[in-house]
Amino acid sequence: MSSMAIRKSKTPQSPTQRADQKRVDILKSAGKCFRKAGFHQTSMQEICTEVGLGPGAVYRYFTSKDAIIAAMAEDERRQARTLLSEFHDTDDLPQALSAITRAFARRYAAISDAGLMTEIYAEGLRNKRVGAVIKTAETEWVDGLADMLRTAQERGQIDQALDAHAAALLLTAMWDGIVIRQAYTPELPEAMLGLFDDMLKRWLANAVPAAGKRSKPAPAPKTATPVAEPQLDLSPPPAPAPAAEKPLTQAEIDLRQMSLI
Amino acid sequence: MSSMAIRKSKTPQSPTQRADQKRVDILKSAGKCFRKAGFHQTSMQEICTEVGLGPGAVYRYFTSKDAIIAAMAEDERRQARTLLSEFHDTDDLPQALSAITRAFARRYAAISDAGLMTEIYAEGLRNKRVGAVIKTAETEWVDGLADMLRTAQERGQIDQALDAHAAALLLTAMWDGIVIRQAYTPELPEAMLGLFDDMLKRWLANAVPAAGKRSKPAPAPKTATPVAEPQLDLSPPPAPAPAAEKPLTQAEIDLRQMSLI
Repeated sequence: MSSMAIRKSKTPQSPTQRADQKRVDILKSAGKCFRKAGFHQTSMQEICTEVGLGPGAVYRYFTSKDAIIAAMAEDERRQARTLLSEFHDTDDLPQALSAITRAFARRYAAISDAGLMTEIYAEGLRNKRVGAVIKTAETEWVDGLADMLRTAQERGQIDQALDAHAAALLLTAMWDGIVIRQAYTPELPEAMLGLFDDMLKRWLANAVPAAGKRSKPAPAPKTATPVAEPQLDLSPPPAPAPAAEKPLTQAEIDLRQMSLI
Repeated sequence: MSSMAIRKSKTPQSPTQRADQKRVDILKSAGKCFRKAGFHQTSMQEICTEVGLGPGAVYRYFTSKDAIIAAMAEDERRQARTLLSEFHDTDDLPQALSAITRAFARRYAAISDAGLMTEIYAEGLRNKRVGAVIKTAETEWVDGLADMLRTAQERGQIDQALDAHAAALLLTAMWDGIVIRQAYTPELPEAMLGLFDDMLKRWLANAVPAAGKRSKPAPAPKTATPVAEPQLDLSPPPAPAPAAEKPLTQAEIDLRQMSLI
């Protein structure tokens, strides 16, 4: 009975796919409960009811609410890293960062999503288990972003004097803050995002006083890797990303997107 | 009995002062409980026990936990506005913003404080009553900051083409994000804060391509209003701030500081 309720895809699934699908369904249902009531006011029983599975089936995937919250935080950052990998070879880093900003803004456009993400951050600061997972995921994310900044520095796209790791932390901080701000000020995201783009260009510009002079021309021709427009979606890159992990297929990304908090 | 437990000051207090002190004590005790367990896992009874007052006495000040959380959010922003008013007449806005950044960083240096502030934001996105209070307080804060930016624009200190309101929103977003980031990455605040200062200078600079050229010299001599060092505390300005509300006395500020989440 329960497997019928879960299996929504029309193509046959392997046992692994079925297991993955169950995990996704549980996370999705938990997200629904959490968004409505907050996760402290949601019981494991309510999550079981929402997903239509017994406690035994749910506990096979997640032994506690903490584990569910930690998995959400992890999935969220994994998806963000996929986004990063798409832009790893960009020849216009400020524009790539702008596209990433807009992807985050759209991802958390719903106040309930921004609220749950904020709640997860708050929980991680008090709850050691959730906090440990967030810290690991965040470290990987920040390292990946710093790596991208260093590549852009080597290519002469941005100021080579920047501390890439500190800049990655600061960018992440700004993105976190923009998510909260957007939730509290839904009428103004576009003006703020436009200003953020300008800020990025000025901040990351190569030359400090004498702008206009490039220390090194970008090696790739401008048309080689067109940067996606602000309408960027979390779609896979046109060609497989080079140094990144195996990119997810569109289907996998859709799945993940659905599973997200 | 309870009044003896509360009254800690050695100087005699007026009835209003006593009432204010009780309010402060309740908020302080609630903050202690919330930091430890989160506010959903804290009952009004636990707050009463912590502060040493009966439910009747506590309910005279706060009719619910929501009212306590809302009061915390309000006090927090009121204190931040006091900080703004100190810098209202600055002749070096980027440095003033840097000092404000460091004041925020110090204010939320304890992970438990950053966590509670984050939790309040998350709660405000789901809980209408808390959300309404936060939105009002945030609007006043952002308006005050935009006003400060406009003054600096009129004085030729920063780029006059900036949309002051959007810039105020973006700055607030960055500060929010830095608080969360600092809590998750306690080892790196200084490098990130230094980078933030650099970013502010580049972003807000008067001339877009040709830096070094000032469109208008700052009217006041550089030594007139020395900007506080990064060791800035929430102390009152040397002279009363001009257009701002009556500045709080040091004692009032100390009191508020203690009362904060």
